[in-house]
Amino acid sequence: MKEKLTVIKVGGKIVEEPDTLNQLLDDFSSLSGYKVLVHGGGRSATRIASQLGIESQMVNGRRITDAETLKVVTMVYGGLVNKNIVAGLQAKGVNAVGLTGADMNVIRSVKRPVKDIDYGYVGDVEKVDGKALADLIHRQIVPVMAPLTHDGNGNLLNTNADTIAGETAKALAEYFDVTLVYCFEKKGVLRDENDDDSVIPVLTPDLFKQYVEEGIVQGGMIPKLENSFSALDAGVSQVVITLASAIHKDSGTIIRK
Amino acid sequence: MKEKLTVIKVGGKIVEEPDTLNQLLDDFSSLSGYKVLVHGGGRSATRIASQLGIESQMVNGRRITDAETLKVVTMVYGGLVNKNIVAGLQAKGVNAVGLTGADMNVIRSVKRPVKDIDYGYVGDVEKVDGKALADLIHRQIVPVMAPLTHDGNGNLLNTNADTIAGETAKALAEYFDVTLVYCFEKKGVLRDENDDDSVIPVLTPDLFKQYVEEGIVQGGMIPKLENSFSALDAGVSQVVITLASAIHKDSGTIIRK
Repeated sequence: MKEKLTVIKVGGKIVEEPDTLNQLLDDFSSLSGYKVLVHGGGRSATRIASQLGIESQMVNGRRITDAETLKVVTMVYGGLVNKNIVAGLQAKGVNAVGLTGADMNVIRSVKRPVKDIDYGYVGDVEKVDGKALADLIHRQIVPVMAPLTHDGNGNLLNTNADTIAGETAKALAEYFDVTLVYCFEKKGVLRDENDDDSVIPVLTPDLFKQYVEEGIVQGGMIPKLENSFSALDAGVSQVVITLASAIHKDSGTIIRK
Repeated sequence: MKEKLTVIKVGGKIVEEPDTLNQLLDDFSSLSGYKVLVHGGGRSATRIASQLGIESQMVNGRRITDAETLKVVTMVYGGLVNKNIVAGLQAKGVNAVGLTGADMNVIRSVKRPVKDIDYGYVGDVEKVDGKALADLIHRQIVPVMAPLTHDGNGNLLNTNADTIAGETAKALAEYFDVTLVYCFEKKGVLRDENDDDSVIPVLTPDLFKQYVEEGIVQGGMIPKLENSFSALDAGVSQVVITLASAIHKDSGTIIRK
């Protein structure tokens, strides 16, 4: 039987505020078993870009990444946010290593082809080296992954953190019994978006289909859940959508086949 | 007999210009045997700090690192410079991993005590985990080290890249036959500072003493060479001071016991 591993994805909001970051580091370090942390950092990137006189352009929630913006996200995601998390985890006894996709060639991507929109230096994940990550993890090292990949030709590429978490979870499913946890600003997938306690405890493909038809699940949650089911299809055992403050609890929405 | 390993230290000037960086990546990737790259990045840090409205204060060539400056060097050294080197080396077939001292807890330091000058968030190296680095290196992974360490309490600390290179070389001397190469803006230690070709080919402790007495070696070169002899005392096989463009050649000044 494979050993358990948890991949936790946290957004920028959590890791950019000292209080919520500290809480996250406590909760993450108290998680038992093998684990991986994937983080965002968009708010800091927007703030530092603005201080440097670079305007942040977003399309459908994705950052248009020109050459100057790529420098900013490389600094913020790969440096400021990532290294502070790593130092914070070390202080709590977690032997973390901060990685972009370029480090040890763990995530190769291709620059997104220009169709309607030119996203610039944005990467679509091509290959995650699950073996390289599993080797580290088996040596009790905890990868902390920044949302940056590389194309193998010397170029870093800005890459969505949800995607990194999903693709990493899939690649590690060959070596571990993987739970993928998406930290969310709500307690889980809600039945009623105005009622924070209306969490749907379990979603299966059939229930998902039913809730979409009934209009209970809609909008941006649909692609998020579709990605979750695609992770399950690729061997991930379960996906959980929950609050960052609840990663060590049995709560949120559990997505299972 | 121990296997050979080369620790190369390059300053900011080399890694911050695309042309010299590219040459360095070519030269470094063509070096045979185990290797480690340690880089600076001070010029970029000064430039980005200035763009962010933070004034860079230097005392004896060392940066006074207040909380805001620490964020800048974390971004620039740990993110921008380090990750671009890593991506560049991957493109040349070198399986690089970018590390600060916090990553895998490879370099612990203590915040420099305030005497005459408060350097702020600057770390004096306490311990390099040679075993953790040697484990990576034996797995054909090439550490690329940024001049940042951590104190084990969650704080990153700005740390001189020459010191990181020297302490790393010492720690690795237990596992490898280590050559430490300091890249320099001159061809080596010069007999006559106005004659770029007056390189002293070999320095031993006796010759060093003689040259200091004769005034041939003076100024900032004295502590650099003292550090080199201290590395030799700690088990490093030889130290070389040479041009970045000459790291794959037998040139420069070789410092031996």
